[in-house]
Amino acid sequence: MGIVVQKYGGSSVADPAAIKRVARRIVQAKKAGNDVVVAVSAMGDTTDELLDKARAVSPLPPARELDMLLTAGERISMALVAMAISDLGFSARSFTGSQAGVITDSVHGKAKIIDVTPGRIQEAIADGHIVIVAGFQGVSQDTKEITTLGRGGTDTTAVALAAALKADVCEIYTDVDGVFTADPRIVPAARKLDTVTYEEMLELAACGAKILHLRCVEYARRYDIPIHVRSSFSQLTGTLVRGSIDDLTHQPQEGSSMEAAIIAGVAHDRSEAKITVVGVPDKVGEAARIFTALAEAQINLDMIVQNVSAAATNLTDISFTLPRTDGQTAMTALAGLQATIGFESLLYDDKIGKVSLIGAGMRSHPGVTAKFFSAIADAGVNLGMISTSEIRISVVVDEADVDAAVAATHTAFDLDATEVEAVVYGGSGR
Amino acid sequence: MGIVVQKYGGSSVADPAAIKRVARRIVQAKKAGNDVVVAVSAMGDTTDELLDKARAVSPLPPARELDMLLTAGERISMALVAMAISDLGFSARSFTGSQAGVITDSVHGKAKIIDVTPGRIQEAIADGHIVIVAGFQGVSQDTKEITTLGRGGTDTTAVALAAALKADVCEIYTDVDGVFTADPRIVPAARKLDTVTYEEMLELAACGAKILHLRCVEYARRYDIPIHVRSSFSQLTGTLVRGSIDDLTHQPQEGSSMEAAIIAGVAHDRSEAKITVVGVPDKVGEAARIFTALAEAQINLDMIVQNVSAAATNLTDISFTLPRTDGQTAMTALAGLQATIGFESLLYDDKIGKVSLIGAGMRSHPGVTAKFFSAIADAGVNLGMISTSEIRISVVVDEADVDAAVAATHTAFDLDATEVEAVVYGGSGR
Repeated sequence: MGIVVQKYGGSSVADPAAIKRVARRIVQAKKAGNDVVVAVSAMGDTTDELLDKARAVSPLPPARELDMLLTAGERISMALVAMAISDLGFSARSFTGSQAGVITDSVHGKAKIIDVTPGRIQEAIADGHIVIVAGFQGVSQDTKEITTLGRGGTDTTAVALAAALKADVCEIYTDVDGVFTADPRIVPAARKLDTVTYEEMLELAACGAKILHLRCVEYARRYDIPIHVRSSFSQLTGTLVRGSIDDLTHQPQEGSSMEAAIIAGVAHDRSEAKITVVGVPDKVGEAARIFTALAEAQINLDMIVQNVSAAATNLTDISFTLPRTDGQTAMTALAGLQATIGFESLLYDDKIGKVSLIGAGMRSHPGVTAKFFSAIADAGVNLGMISTSEIRISVVVDEADVDAAVAATHTAFDLDATEVEAVVYGGSGR
Repeated sequence: MGIVVQKYGGSSVADPAAIKRVARRIVQAKKAGNDVVVAVSAMGDTTDELLDKARAVSPLPPARELDMLLTAGERISMALVAMAISDLGFSARSFTGSQAGVITDSVHGKAKIIDVTPGRIQEAIADGHIVIVAGFQGVSQDTKEITTLGRGGTDTTAVALAAALKADVCEIYTDVDGVFTADPRIVPAARKLDTVTYEEMLELAACGAKILHLRCVEYARRYDIPIHVRSSFSQLTGTLVRGSIDDLTHQPQEGSSMEAAIIAGVAHDRSEAKITVVGVPDKVGEAARIFTALAEAQINLDMIVQNVSAAATNLTDISFTLPRTDGQTAMTALAGLQATIGFESLLYDDKIGKVSLIGAGMRSHPGVTAKFFSAIADAGVNLGMISTSEIRISVVVDEADVDAAVAATHTAFDLDATEVEAVVYGGSGR
């Protein structure tokens, strides 16, 4: 008998009917002989409603009190899930993050999990209860204050619980059937992946695939917890996230189920903007000054490109991408440097999109880059910036060209599903 | 510099505008040089909305999970109040019942406060913060489970905090100006009382005055905490609940502000029903059997009357009043006894009302009972049952006669306000 950790997001517990469905699902896992621990998010729009209330009393509410407020959301959903399970004749106990031993640092609003001390959960399991834990929240180690984990917090709670409890698997329930080779809204022939490595999943998440948050995958990778991403609306097997690309490389037996496919998928991201600092004097330390200023403004950069300087002028251009939401802050920080650095101008472009090709297999397969660029060129799409990692190639294109670039790449790498597969996907109830 | 504990109920924090008003009020007490600790209820209808959600997932939700759910209500309101205070430039810290050290027994849904260990509150006060505490909730001593205190819970939280912190006063904010000599909806000339003793307030609360809950007054009396009942909608001084009738008797100086008025007020209660057990054999132990059965059914009785038995039959009738909500349970329990006891029949009447005259001074003033009964008789109202305590006389009348009996009694004891007082009352913003 193993331990299964399940995670249900806000849309899976949006209303009483959904909560009852989730309860049946949980009981099913218990009946199958598992000890079951569940992390839940707040119901549907609860968090947004609470934020609206906060804004109505204070334009800039203190972070400590905002965390106190928002944690009421999971408290409500977890109690209701426990009640629905009880109504099915099984006993359930709900625990807040603090009660569950989710220990964090003290950064309100985006706390990081430091440790999980699951004593009360283990007692409840030993007593035969199904355990429901409030996602997204914890208690700070030093100050014993209630904290929230920020975006993707409930996924991270689930994986952290799975690690602390040495669970067999962490099942992340969502409203899609798993991880796909591309966004099915753009590529109707996208296929569900049966397995994907942690590294590939990290790249997919970082490149715009919204199905799992980076933090949760990082946590799972560190503690080697298999994540099963699956739909709460169907009984289909989803996508198993597990294994390292290093394992794949070291065990390259032909036909092995763990052998790397060349390409895991095509991701895209329309949330970034591009800033170009034009005419930067090409001398030591100027780039460092620019990026130090951006770091001090707490801006996370993504791609960075610097061309060789034109010999005639000894000036160079530096471009980088960043979240659009940070665009104004970054432009303000850079404008303040113009006098000291003496660059010519700043360009801001938020009509861009990023298309990324990800696959552990591309390391050992030459020609992937050429095929990727050819596919995009054949679709009539112009390339902007380019960046690569060991298992990823990303390009920046016009925002309007993203769909065409994704579709062309998906086809070029033979990722399109056959008709039969497409029907299976179509029947998922999404 | 003293400590003031304030309590705001659900109607005082019903929406963002109300929360901002409460915040200004709290800040006003802080500016006046006090350390301020506040107990808040859930916003307006929040508790009912949460109960609706619980019913939607389970007809009979487990008490532990219901407490987990309902405590989210105060968590929301306390965080919002703290935010609103912060928006006024003062710093506030909110604490759950558990964090505030409100230790209870483990009876979910109606836990009793065993102890208050206010270490975190005292630290926050020492750091200069205004402290907001979730009312109505605590944590159980043995099992460390979240509990709720049941009806009147936030009043009790406030008084318990005041006792633990040795506060100067516990201010209970409500939507009326204080404790009145009668319900102003029935007696427009009712006057606000400036002071009332704990014992009188206990009798008023027990006899249907809804302004303070019995538990909270009992707690205040035990720890000798003055309660100031006042309106959150006006700046008027309300009613001070303090002092014992024994103090009044032992210090009977003429003109002392603590001297007992003869009558504190007239209370009424339309929430009870009357059951009569007709034709009970008048032998030892029969009444005991009846009341043991009712006790086992967890029914709280109020008035009990047994007439002398008719000599011819050696049968007697036993009547008692009880909450209407317990009527069906009591009738069922009694019907089960009919064969063993051999009484003739059961009568059930829920068209009754209770009118009570309460005053510490009536102990030393003969003739109060006669004047009370005469007033009711002059109003053409028929008396049913009668019961008395040292400082109270209660009668049961027809439900339809309650208003007339209250008004006639109020006038007979010269409690009606002069015109000027009535104007002050009318300006209270109720």
